[in-house]
Amino acid sequence: MNLMAETTIEADPTVPVIRLTRDFAATPEQLFRAHTDPRLFAQWVGPNSLTTRIDQWDARTGGSFRFVSSRDGEEHAFHGCFHEIRPDRIVQTFTYEGDPDGVALETLRFEDLGDGRTRLHAQSLVDSFEGRDAWLRSGMEVGVNEGYAKLQELITRDAA
Amino acid sequence: MNLMAETTIEADPTVPVIRLTRDFAATPEQLFRAHTDPRLFAQWVGPNSLTTRIDQWDARTGGSFRFVSSRDGEEHAFHGCFHEIRPDRIVQTFTYEGDPDGVALETLRFEDLGDGRTRLHAQSLVDSFEGRDAWLRSGMEVGVNEGYAKLQELITRDAA
Repeated sequence: MNLMAETTIEADPTVPVIRLTRDFAATPEQLFRAHTDPRLFAQWVGPNSLTTRIDQWDARTGGSFRFVSSRDGEEHAFHGCFHEIRPDRIVQTFTYEGDPDGVALETLRFEDLGDGRTRLHAQSLVDSFEGRDAWLRSGMEVGVNEGYAKLQELITRDAA
Repeated sequence: MNLMAETTIEADPTVPVIRLTRDFAATPEQLFRAHTDPRLFAQWVGPNSLTTRIDQWDARTGGSFRFVSSRDGEEHAFHGCFHEIRPDRIVQTFTYEGDPDGVALETLRFEDLGDGRTRLHAQSLVDSFEGRDAWLRSGMEVGVNEGYAKLQELITRDAA
């Protein structure tokens, strides 16, 4: 198994959606925990060049979150609400505060592949192709791939 | 001014969005309150044939809601989280529990037209045209028009 596999990033041709798919050497429970435990989440989210602190976190259906990622004193904040938290599925909203009126509806699914492997399906829906494509052109794949590599390392290390 | 004006219901041709537009004889503050005060909201939401009770309500950024509409003992429940609550804009998620995996991202804007008139812009975004069009074919315009007529009556009565 290639633990450093790249994430598949797909732009839907018909709706303003981005879909990420990545396989992890992890159980669904481990992936769920990495997305809902703020101490774990802060350790892996985003590119290697950023450090993240959790400002507010209540990972339950109807809860909300805010976190701040920083590099050399420059801060980027993100917030949203958790529409649904269940073991195999998380639905949440997501706003980058540098674009305060922008908002994505995100759905994460943890597909059990057996043998301690899980496929993460992450979908982001926005209300325009312009907004979706600007995000794709922003270099988001660096943060996605570096973040998911950290997530995998975190799970591998904790299990060791 | 025609207080019983129908709501304009527009299906976007390029993204799976429904947009509702309706003018009210109300200030933005009155429309905001009718959408955030649970006692008021329960009095106007939905078609005339349904009675609504609020199960849970916390209308602030990062809060959530659940309400139950009933007719002859048959209950329909809805829930979501409030991504953003501000005087001119509400962003929230919305799920009908009869279709528990379905979720819409809704944005409401209150455009001040002056002279005590406000234009409501309501947008619902889902992740497929099939889902969007099934909703349009469901007869939703009855609930929309009857609900907004009740909202207008409520504001007119309270101001009298």
